[in-house]
Amino acid sequence: MNNESPDVLDSSAAPPPQTIALVGKYHNPDIAESIRLLASNLHQRGMTVLIEEETARNMATGLDLRNWATGNFPWLGAHADLAIVVGGDGTMLNAARELARYRVPLVGVNRGRLGFLTDVSRDEMLTCLDDLLDGKFIHENRMLLDAEIIRDARVVADNLALNDVVVDKGAIGRMIEFELSIDGEFIYRLRADGLIAATSTGSTAYALSANGPILHPQVAAIALVPLCPHALTNRPILVGDRNEIEIRIVHATDSRAHFDGQVTIDLRNGDSVRIRRSEYSICLLHPPSYSYFSMLRQKLHWSERPKEH
Amino acid sequence: MNNESPDVLDSSAAPPPQTIALVGKYHNPDIAESIRLLASNLHQRGMTVLIEEETARNMATGLDLRNWATGNFPWLGAHADLAIVVGGDGTMLNAARELARYRVPLVGVNRGRLGFLTDVSRDEMLTCLDDLLDGKFIHENRMLLDAEIIRDARVVADNLALNDVVVDKGAIGRMIEFELSIDGEFIYRLRADGLIAATSTGSTAYALSANGPILHPQVAAIALVPLCPHALTNRPILVGDRNEIEIRIVHATDSRAHFDGQVTIDLRNGDSVRIRRSEYSICLLHPPSYSYFSMLRQKLHWSERPKEH
Amino acid sequence: MNNESPDVLDSSAAPPPQTIALVGKYHNPDIAESIRLLASNLHQRGMTVLIEEETARNMATGLDLRNWATGNFPWLGAHADLAIVVGGDGTMLNAARELARYRVPLVGVNRGRLGFLTDVSRDEMLTCLDDLLDGKFIHENRMLLDAEIIRDARVVADNLALNDVVVDKGAIGRMIEFELSIDGEFIYRLRADGLIAATSTGSTAYALSANGPILHPQVAAIALVPLCPHALTNRPILVGDRNEIEIRIVHATDSRAHFDGQVTIDLRNGDSVRIRRSEYSICLLHPPSYSYFSMLRQKLHWSERPKEH
Amino acid sequence: MNNESPDVLDSSAAPPPQTIALVGKYHNPDIAESIRLLASNLHQRGMTVLIEEETARNMATGLDLRNWATGNFPWLGAHADLAIVVGGDGTMLNAARELARYRVPLVGVNRGRLGFLTDVSRDEMLTCLDDLLDGKFIHENRMLLDAEIIRDARVVADNLALNDVVVDKGAIGRMIEFELSIDGEFIYRLRADGLIAATSTGSTAYALSANGPILHPQVAAIALVPLCPHALTNRPILVGDRNEIEIRIVHATDSRAHFDGQVTIDLRNGDSVRIRRSEYSICLLHPPSYSYFSMLRQKLHWSERPKEH
Repeated sequence: MNNESPDVLDSSAAPPPQTIALVGKYHNPDIAESIRLLASNLHQRGMTVLIEEETARNMATGLDLRNWATGNFPWLGAHADLAIVVGGDGTMLNAARELARYRVPLVGVNRGRLGFLTDVSRDEMLTCLDDLLDGKFIHENRMLLDAEIIRDARVVADNLALNDVVVDKGAIGRMIEFELSIDGEFIYRLRADGLIAATSTGSTAYALSANGPILHPQVAAIALVPLCPHALTNRPILVGDRNEIEIRIVHATDSRAHFDGQVTIDLRNGDSVRIRRSEYSICLLHPPSYSYFSMLRQKLHWSERPKEH
Repeated sequence: MNNESPDVLDSSAAPPPQTIALVGKYHNPDIAESIRLLASNLHQRGMTVLIEEETARNMATGLDLRNWATGNFPWLGAHADLAIVVGGDGTMLNAARELARYRVPLVGVNRGRLGFLTDVSRDEMLTCLDDLLDGKFIHENRMLLDAEIIRDARVVADNLALNDVVVDKGAIGRMIEFELSIDGEFIYRLRADGLIAATSTGSTAYALSANGPILHPQVAAIALVPLCPHALTNRPILVGDRNEIEIRIVHATDSRAHFDGQVTIDLRNGDSVRIRRSEYSICLLHPPSYSYFSMLRQKLHWSERPKEH
Repeated sequence: MNNESPDVLDSSAAPPPQTIALVGKYHNPDIAESIRLLASNLHQRGMTVLIEEETARNMATGLDLRNWATGNFPWLGAHADLAIVVGGDGTMLNAARELARYRVPLVGVNRGRLGFLTDVSRDEMLTCLDDLLDGKFIHENRMLLDAEIIRDARVVADNLALNDVVVDKGAIGRMIEFELSIDGEFIYRLRADGLIAATSTGSTAYALSANGPILHPQVAAIALVPLCPHALTNRPILVGDRNEIEIRIVHATDSRAHFDGQVTIDLRNGDSVRIRRSEYSICLLHPPSYSYFSMLRQKLHWSERPKEH
Repeated sequence: MNNESPDVLDSSAAPPPQTIALVGKYHNPDIAESIRLLASNLHQRGMTVLIEEETARNMATGLDLRNWATGNFPWLGAHADLAIVVGGDGTMLNAARELARYRVPLVGVNRGRLGFLTDVSRDEMLTCLDDLLDGKFIHENRMLLDAEIIRDARVVADNLALNDVVVDKGAIGRMIEFELSIDGEFIYRLRADGLIAATSTGSTAYALSANGPILHPQVAAIALVPLCPHALTNRPILVGDRNEIEIRIVHATDSRAHFDGQVTIDLRNGDSVRIRRSEYSICLLHPPSYSYFSMLRQKLHWSERPKEH
C-alpha cells in the first residue's frame, strides 16, 4: 500500500539511534544468548547498550553485567532511542505498554516462525542491524487503548493495551450481563461470555478467534467483538477511534478485565470499564522489505499467486 | 415431523400417573405460589403429591407441610411417576440430571416467556393438568452426556449433562491447550478458550452462541464446538452418539469443566475429560400442541408465513 | 454519539430549502398517494415542487401534472435543494447514486416499518415537514464507492454504490477465482462465491448477512467481505477509505459485478473491478430524534434497558 | 474410531473383484496415461477391464481400444465389480451419482494433493492394486440425497447428490425468498442467497464455506445451511436422514437448483425442491491406512501432536 498517510508509515525520520535498549522474554533462559550477541555486536558498533533489569536478572549467569547498564522500563524509556525486543508477540505487547509513553520505537526479534509483531528472525538479527542503525527500517505508528476501571465514581485501576481490552466472565463459567455505551449513549444490554475492544493490531489476535474482522493498521477504528453473545444479532461493531466506549457490569457472579491478555483485574457488579484511544501510540520499526499484507498472507496461509505467473 | 422413531416422540405409553413430584427453582420465593396451587389441585384430583425437599424448605412459610411428603431427588426418583418442574430452563437442567437415572418424566412450567425446555406457561398450568393426567402429553426422550474427569489414571469426578459439557479456561483469561481424541484416535491439538460438547438439547443453548449448529433432537449426534479457536479452520464437528470423546489438557494455567453450566470442576494439566452418551435419557412431556420447530421459530424470531397465506 | 466530527453529523448548515424534489418507488402505484399529499402540502407552504419523471409517469392517473414540473435526475440535481424519497431502502440507494454528484440531500420516507436509510414513517411524514423546512433535520454525510470495470486496459463500465460493489458468480453456480490487490499490492488469490466491498452504510445490508462487521458511519473504511470463501482463513478485512481495491477475475465460467444489488454488469476472465471511495458523498437528512445506534437496536432487536431501570 | 457400525465401515465383505471399470476426468487428456497404465496392469493380473465411454473417447488417440470394452455408466453399473475413478473430487461426485443405483464401489485416484474423496495418489496407484484386489480396502457407505423438482404438482426433474442440493439465486444477484418445510411442517420463510442441503460428505465442501458444521460420515443427518440469510438468527440446522425437506420458492426473479454443483436446473416461483435420503448409497473403498479424521487434519491444517511426543 503506497499512499499511506505520513503519520502511519514512514521510513525517513529521526536521527540515527545511539542508545539501544534490549528486552527479552522473561523466564526463558535461552533468550539470553540472543541478548548477549546483540549486546556485544551493538557495543562493537559504538552504541550504548541498556538492558531491561528483569531481562538481565533472568540471564545473569551468562551476562557480564559490568559492560552494560540495566534499569527498569521508565529508565529505559528516558534514555533509549529504540528498543530491541527478543521474544514473541507477548513480549512485544508488554514492552509496548511499558514504553509507549516514552515514545521509544520497538523492533521485534523472534525465534522460529515470526509473529504478527515480530518481524525479524533471530537468524538474520545481526545482519539486519546495519539497516536498523542506518535508519532504513520503516516506522509505523500503532494506536493503543487506554482503559480505566470505575467503581463508585472513582478510578480504581487503569492500564494501556496494544491489542485489546477484554471484559469477560471468570472461572465460574456463567455469562455476564453488561451494558455497552458509546460517548454516553446506551447501545445495548447483553448477556455473553464477554466483549473484546480491539485495536487494529489486536484485530488479528484474540478478536479474530472470536469472529472479528481484520483491520488494516491504517483504519482509525476500534472493534467491539462480543464473545458468545446470547443474542445472535449482536455482531462485531467498528466505532471511530475518537469514541469513548463504556462497558458497565450489570450482573455477573464473577467477571474480569484483561489488558492484552497479560494484566487482569477483578470486576464487581456496577463497575464500568471506560476505554478510549490512548494519547500515546507505539512506533514499530519494520525491515525495509516489510509488508503488512504479506505478513498476514503468511500467517493466515492465504493463497499465493501460482508460481508460473 | 410426523414419522419420528417411536423411541423419540410418543404420545401413547405409560399408565396414568398417580404420584407426582413438584420441583421449584431454588432461591426464588415467588415460585412458592405456583407450587402451592399445583399441590392443592393435584391433591383434589386424588394424586399423591411429593415435594422436593429444598423446594419445600425455600417455600416453607407458605406451605402446609403436613399435607405433602418431601424428600430428596433419589427418593422422588424412587416414588414419583412424573415431576412437574416450576422455573426456567436452568431448573429443568438440574432436575433432569438428578432424575434421569430414575426414568421420571419431566414437565416444565415457566413464568413469563417460555424456554427451550419449559413448554407450559404458568397461566395455563392448571388447565393443562387434565391433558397431562389423561396421558395426552407427548413423550420425548432426550439423550444426556456422561462425563468423567480422569487424573493419574483414576476417575476423580463424574456427572451427567443434558445440555453440554464444557472444558474452558478459568479466570486468568489465557487460552488453554488441549488434545481431542475420538474413540482413542487423536483428532487435533488446539489452543482455544475451550471446547463445548453439546447434545441436541444443548445445541440451542451455549453452543449456539459459539456458532454451533442446531441439532434436531432426533439426530443421534454430539456437537463439538470450539470456543475462540486460535486456528481458524477448527470448526464445529458432529460425531455419532456412540463415540467416546476425550479432551486432554496439555497446558493450561487454569482450566475448568462445566456440566450444564451448573456444576464446575477444576482441571489440571494432564487431566482428561471423557465424554460419552449416558445410558440414561430423560423423558420430556410436552403439551399436545407442542412442535419443536414452532418453539424454535418463536425463540429465534424466525420469519412466519405472512398472515394472508 | 455526541462528539461526531463536524463533517459527519451537522444540524445547522444550509439556507432553508425552497425547491424540493419528490422521488417514489417505481412500479408501486400506492406510493402515488403519499407523493400527492407531499406535493400539495409543500405547494401550500410555498415551496417549488419537482417530481422525478418516472415517478410521475407511474402515478400519472392520480396526479394533476399541470401543477408540478417533472424531469430526470440530472435536472432534479440541478434545481432541487433537497429530495424526499418515498419507498424503501432500495429506492433510497437508487436516488443516492443518481443525485450524489449534485449534492442534493435526501430524506427517506417509508411505509410500515422503517429501513436502515428511511427514517420517517409515512404516518408522521407531514408533521415532520415543519422540522425539515426549518432546517432542524440532522445532516449526515455518507461515503459512496466508485467502481470501474477494466477490460483490455479500457474502462468498459463504471458506476457508484452507496451500499456495496459485489463481484460474484453467476447462474452456473460455480465458484469464481479472483485476485485481490490493494493500492497495486497483491493481497491474495481466492476461490469463492464472490467478494463484497461495502461502505459503512452497506455494512448493515448484504455484508452483514455474509458475516461482515457493522461499521459506524464515522469510520472511514471499506469492508472487504468474502462470500463463501473456499479457504477458511479468508475473513472480512477493513481497509482505509483512501485505498484502491482491485478485484481481477482469474477464472470464472460466469461472473458479475453488482452495484447496490441494483445494477449488474457481466464480467469476463481477465476483467478487473477497481473500487475506490467516490469524490462525492450523499447527505442524509435525519429527524432531530435520530440516533444511528437506536435505529440499529430496533432493526436488529438488540436488548433494551429493562423498563424499571 | 473403532466401534463404527458394521454398515458404515467394513473391511471384510464381498468376493474378490473380477471386472473393473475405469473412469477418468473428462476434458483432461493427461488423465489418459493413468488410465492406460491401470488398464494394462489390471489386464496382466487377469482382470476384465471396462472403460467408461466418454473417458475412452477423450483418450482415444493413446488407447488401444481393441483390448478393452467401453460403455456408458448403466452398462458399467451392470457389469463392474468396482470402479476406479481418476481425477479430483468432482470426478468422484459425478461417478457416484451415476453408479450409486448399481451398487458399484468406488476408489478415487488423484494427481498431486489428495481430495476429500480421492484417497490414492497417482504415484502409489499401482502398488495399491494388490491391497485393492485382495479385498483389503476399507468399505465405507456414504448416503446420497434424492431431490425432485415439483412444478404444478408434477415432478419436472430429479437427480441424486452425494455432496449437496443447493437452491440459490441466479445471475441477477437478488436474494430469493423461500419457505422451508420438514415432513410437511412449515419451519420458516427466509430471504437469502439460498439454502444448502448437505450430506455428511458434502459438509466439508460448499457447506463448510458457508459456515456449516463438519459431520462425521457416521452421523445420520442432513445439514441445512442458509447462504447469506437476511435474518441473522437463521443458523445451520441438522435434521435426521429420514426427514423429507421441502424448499418452496415463494418469490425469486431468478433461482436455480444445483446437484453437487454439477447439474443445474432453473426454478420458477412456486416450484418446490423435495429432498430426502436416497434409497441408494455409494460405497467408497479406502486404503487400509485410511482415517477420516487424519484426512481432515491434513486438508484443514489442523494442528498435529508435536514430534517430541
